[in-house]
Amino acid sequence: MTESSSRPQPGFASDNMAGVSPAILDALGAANAGAMLSYGGDALSARVEARLSALFERDVAALLVSTGTAANALSLATLTPPWGAVLCHADSHIENDECGAPEFFTAGAKLVHVAGDHARIDPEALAETALRNRGDVHGVQPACVSITQTTELGTVYSLEHTRAIGAACRAAGLSLHMDGSRFANALVALDASPAEMTWKAGVDILSFGATKNGAMGVEAVILFDPARAGELAFRRKRGGHLTSKMRFLAAQMDAYLTDDLWLANARQANAMAARLAKGLAALEGVEMMGPVEANMMFARLPQPMIDGLLARGYKLYVDRWGARVVRLVTSFATTAEDVDALLEAARGSA
Amino acid sequence: MTESSSRPQPGFASDNMAGVSPAILDALGAANAGAMLSYGGDALSARVEARLSALFERDVAALLVSTGTAANALSLATLTPPWGAVLCHADSHIENDECGAPEFFTAGAKLVHVAGDHARIDPEALAETALRNRGDVHGVQPACVSITQTTELGTVYSLEHTRAIGAACRAAGLSLHMDGSRFANALVALDASPAEMTWKAGVDILSFGATKNGAMGVEAVILFDPARAGELAFRRKRGGHLTSKMRFLAAQMDAYLTDDLWLANARQANAMAARLAKGLAALEGVEMMGPVEANMMFARLPQPMIDGLLARGYKLYVDRWGARVVRLVTSFATTAEDVDALLEAARGSA
Amino acid sequence: MTESSSRPQPGFASDNMAGVSPAILDALGAANAGAMLSYGGDALSARVEARLSALFERDVAALLVSTGTAANALSLATLTPPWGAVLCHADSHIENDECGAPEFFTAGAKLVHVAGDHARIDPEALAETALRNRGDVHGVQPACVSITQTTELGTVYSLEHTRAIGAACRAAGLSLHMDGSRFANALVALDASPAEMTWKAGVDILSFGATKNGAMGVEAVILFDPARAGELAFRRKRGGHLTSKMRFLAAQMDAYLTDDLWLANARQANAMAARLAKGLAALEGVEMMGPVEANMMFARLPQPMIDGLLARGYKLYVDRWGARVVRLVTSFATTAEDVDALLEAARGSA
Amino acid sequence: MTESSSRPQPGFASDNMAGVSPAILDALGAANAGAMLSYGGDALSARVEARLSALFERDVAALLVSTGTAANALSLATLTPPWGAVLCHADSHIENDECGAPEFFTAGAKLVHVAGDHARIDPEALAETALRNRGDVHGVQPACVSITQTTELGTVYSLEHTRAIGAACRAAGLSLHMDGSRFANALVALDASPAEMTWKAGVDILSFGATKNGAMGVEAVILFDPARAGELAFRRKRGGHLTSKMRFLAAQMDAYLTDDLWLANARQANAMAARLAKGLAALEGVEMMGPVEANMMFARLPQPMIDGLLARGYKLYVDRWGARVVRLVTSFATTAEDVDALLEAARGSA
Repeated sequence: MTESSSRPQPGFASDNMAGVSPAILDALGAANAGAMLSYGGDALSARVEARLSALFERDVAALLVSTGTAANALSLATLTPPWGAVLCHADSHIENDECGAPEFFTAGAKLVHVAGDHARIDPEALAETALRNRGDVHGVQPACVSITQTTELGTVYSLEHTRAIGAACRAAGLSLHMDGSRFANALVALDASPAEMTWKAGVDILSFGATKNGAMGVEAVILFDPARAGELAFRRKRGGHLTSKMRFLAAQMDAYLTDDLWLANARQANAMAARLAKGLAALEGVEMMGPVEANMMFARLPQPMIDGLLARGYKLYVDRWGARVVRLVTSFATTAEDVDALLEAARGSA
Repeated sequence: MTESSSRPQPGFASDNMAGVSPAILDALGAANAGAMLSYGGDALSARVEARLSALFERDVAALLVSTGTAANALSLATLTPPWGAVLCHADSHIENDECGAPEFFTAGAKLVHVAGDHARIDPEALAETALRNRGDVHGVQPACVSITQTTELGTVYSLEHTRAIGAACRAAGLSLHMDGSRFANALVALDASPAEMTWKAGVDILSFGATKNGAMGVEAVILFDPARAGELAFRRKRGGHLTSKMRFLAAQMDAYLTDDLWLANARQANAMAARLAKGLAALEGVEMMGPVEANMMFARLPQPMIDGLLARGYKLYVDRWGARVVRLVTSFATTAEDVDALLEAARGSA
Repeated sequence: MTESSSRPQPGFASDNMAGVSPAILDALGAANAGAMLSYGGDALSARVEARLSALFERDVAALLVSTGTAANALSLATLTPPWGAVLCHADSHIENDECGAPEFFTAGAKLVHVAGDHARIDPEALAETALRNRGDVHGVQPACVSITQTTELGTVYSLEHTRAIGAACRAAGLSLHMDGSRFANALVALDASPAEMTWKAGVDILSFGATKNGAMGVEAVILFDPARAGELAFRRKRGGHLTSKMRFLAAQMDAYLTDDLWLANARQANAMAARLAKGLAALEGVEMMGPVEANMMFARLPQPMIDGLLARGYKLYVDRWGARVVRLVTSFATTAEDVDALLEAARGSA
Repeated sequence: MTESSSRPQPGFASDNMAGVSPAILDALGAANAGAMLSYGGDALSARVEARLSALFERDVAALLVSTGTAANALSLATLTPPWGAVLCHADSHIENDECGAPEFFTAGAKLVHVAGDHARIDPEALAETALRNRGDVHGVQPACVSITQTTELGTVYSLEHTRAIGAACRAAGLSLHMDGSRFANALVALDASPAEMTWKAGVDILSFGATKNGAMGVEAVILFDPARAGELAFRRKRGGHLTSKMRFLAAQMDAYLTDDLWLANARQANAMAARLAKGLAALEGVEMMGPVEANMMFARLPQPMIDGLLARGYKLYVDRWGARVVRLVTSFATTAEDVDALLEAARGSA
């Protein structure tokens, strides 16, 4: 990331630059009283699993881990044998930003790309790729599909789109994983229920992210078939992801779900993204790249504008997605003042 | 673990049943202000590495992770090729309690046992085992040694003992890893410096634990040869152990080291262990098993005493180390009242 | 191995120092006519599988590979998840002589030792070890047992013994693998049928060795449950063990089974071992170590005798199994003259 | 592969459908005399390594294995850490036809595609891809390049082209592997020396194939830096690829090199391919796909011609490379009569 040395500015480079929602911080303190069984044997952990079952309108197994990479890699390892293929978009996080974690946890399975616009897998392309090598011992065997919701380009799978992916999976005998590190942002964008977005559409395992949306560091692997939980628990321990003082992961997730904090946070992030996109699009020389559907956008800026923002202390990913293209991400912590200040700075730099 | 259904009691089953030191909890709140670079690019993370270098009187690389299993497995993977052997005690944590994490992270290296009393490796036995299979393509090649300080049986390696292990490693061309999940308890027991206990005695990589001694969930992999940090960083990411909001791991470690909190915590735990051991030994029918050198002890109790403690809500590991043998562990949070109440309960149950 | 520089002598160090049975060599030539489908699509491969089904009195899947290590590691990977344990004797080939191949192919499972005399697992010890860590997420889970027939110390599991192992496996829900690199030597020693020695006693997968008993390089992985064949086929390919010109592996196995060549070869090896053992035991200063039940023996020799044999060009493993202990192995190619010459040389060296 | 049930025909589907050169078969018999040290300790193995050093005009380490997949996967594992990327063409054998063996042997490294015409990597595209993720802990790190000579589309890298690849590798600090399962066919096509085609152009490790060109099953991993041999030897053993009766692999390779048999075989295969290509191109309705540079070609045939050939017993890969496209491969065993008969059959089917 290109950055300058001046004073810190709101973190538009990524939603993981934000801190923690106050209610979640408070929950850590509340969970600190007395001794509790470790490794998830505490009452708070049990309560979180029950809450997630209620939220998803189905008995689920929910295993907490502290990073999204762990949630994804453990999920994929549970769905894919070493000689299997994970079908995913070329622009997915598991393909580009996890340093091969899926390959590590699966003992060497292969990520195979499926085409589609705006980082969304095309169901027809999927149906074709799903048949590749079928039964041919020389080739890896398609075993599961992984989709990202919200995608790495900030787009959202519609319910219909997800259902079409789910149908293609069932037709081909593949499992379906959803990388939901920004699940809440998609959910409020779609105004859908968690159940509709997942198992009702064919999702088998969900990485239910909370960290990017206000938690300190907790993600739930949600198994819509709880029978897989045993295997996943062994993989979690073996991967070093079974936290001893589990109550503090559970406390985060519990507070995240309480009083719909997670939805409020996501709505704030999305609203600020809309405000930012509108403002940016109105600036001379700015070209918006692709739709803005949740809390992330990509825009090609004039070089002086980029330079000016960096000089003012904004951290930005520049040029990774094309010349002079920057990624801008909002979070629960982003305020209208933050957005307006950024726009003002951009205007002043052009 | 055998437990009863009655009200919660102080967690003598393990030091990870305790919560978090208040100062560490406060530090999380203090670290929550504003946006920061993620993945360790923040100032707090840099500061922690500098503090650890000062503490160890040497430039070290320090990579934070959230569990001890991750710290150990990443360390061992950095020191051991897939065709290598990790020499360790049969009673070590890496052998018994990590569900094969070392084998997973090393891509299938082998843990080979070295004998020794009280869970401590005997240097002479080590010297012999270190030569096993040397250069023979049919056998795994000894690559490193891993010792646990404090050991799983609650004993401590003296400085002299550690130096003898270090010398045996150098003589055989092996690296030396120290699993220091209870490093502080050993340090205050020995009244030694961190440098003396580690690199001055030949240790190459240390898993520097904080979780069991008052943190929420943070351990530092300390590389006395910082040149290994690059490889370890890739392995950490790939293992799903690169935390995005790293400032909150750094904040824990920072508070842990501030005002010698870590030493005070360990002294309290050890003192309470001594008090408990003294009290237990005086009870009729109780047989202490092995020396009590830090914050853990093993004792064979009369069955009615075990039953009584369980009935009063104490959680205990029973029978794993022999018939009627219980493990008792104290922590920073254990008070004299807690100890006396346990002893009273034991007395009342006999 | 300690060796001298003088002229070659019959290979008593191992049965893999022998060449190939003439009938097997001839079969390679006969299989060379014309083009055939590769990768096992040829008629000869199909015929071998049918012959093995007939031999074992049951429909089996038989996958050919070129080494015993491959046969064992592929079998174990099919029976053991990465978080599993393979229970085996500390003196087994998979533990000591495969450089971690089982750990590699299983993605890091653990080999756990079960005690027993003369390299044979004790069924009672097995029953106990089989329960270790059951359901405890911190420990690897016993998944299968692997026994070696003939063992690495040259002993043979009786049918009763194998059945007791099989029963312990069924009782604990474990699978049973037999490393049969010297299967034929055990079979003729027991005068049993292949079915009795394997699936009728509870064996799930057999590494059916031919190389040490007269083939050039072929072993069959025999799956008594053919449903596992699909997984094993992918693992075989992925391990680089799917031979393209498979007809030449099949031809070896076909000739090996024709006219009971394999039994004749094993009988010759065993008879020569008996002759050698009898002769050795009569020599002054020679101490036989353990029973001689198939084609291998261990004996403690006077040092001058060892020196004399080496000086005469005999290759010998010395001291690996104790001071002045040598291993002597006979093969299908060993003749009475070879044995008598060795004994004569030993006598002359003492 | 689509096949019919009628009588066998020459194997134009692949060069591994052919048998073995008579001289190589004879060498197996000659190698069968007496006992020899196993695992490569025999004189024939030493001789083969010396011959390969002479052939390549440099001291090389040469490790024999029985399959090309093993040679490739072991080579790549030696050049690539688990967090590394192997840069290769999307049409390469390691990407499509080894069921993930490279991922397995490297413990989960990633194969990343580099563009280029006719299955040959473009050096400029390589230079760009080589920089991807450099030093970014979130992405796999380019570690080596693997090129196929002859390629999977039957094309050949010119010396100049290989040198350009080698230069791009050195500039980016990457190692270079050559998959030479059809090395001889390329060599005679280029009329170049083995040294020119490999280390003089920047190749670090070569999979030197013999199986497809007349051997029964032997490939040499040739390390132009013999210091890597130790690691590769452990990986070979651990992969189950250390043959016990190694003399029989060595004998094949020895005969392969004797009297330039390997060159004669490759010239025959290439000449027959030229004859076949010329004949096919002259047939009405046949469209040749891409250049024919060695012993393989692709052609789009009229459907009746395909049906006719299948009906006459020819085995053919059909449709994998496009509708009605067949792959035709010649070998050392292909005769002018075989070619003319195929052409006659094609003509008669149209």
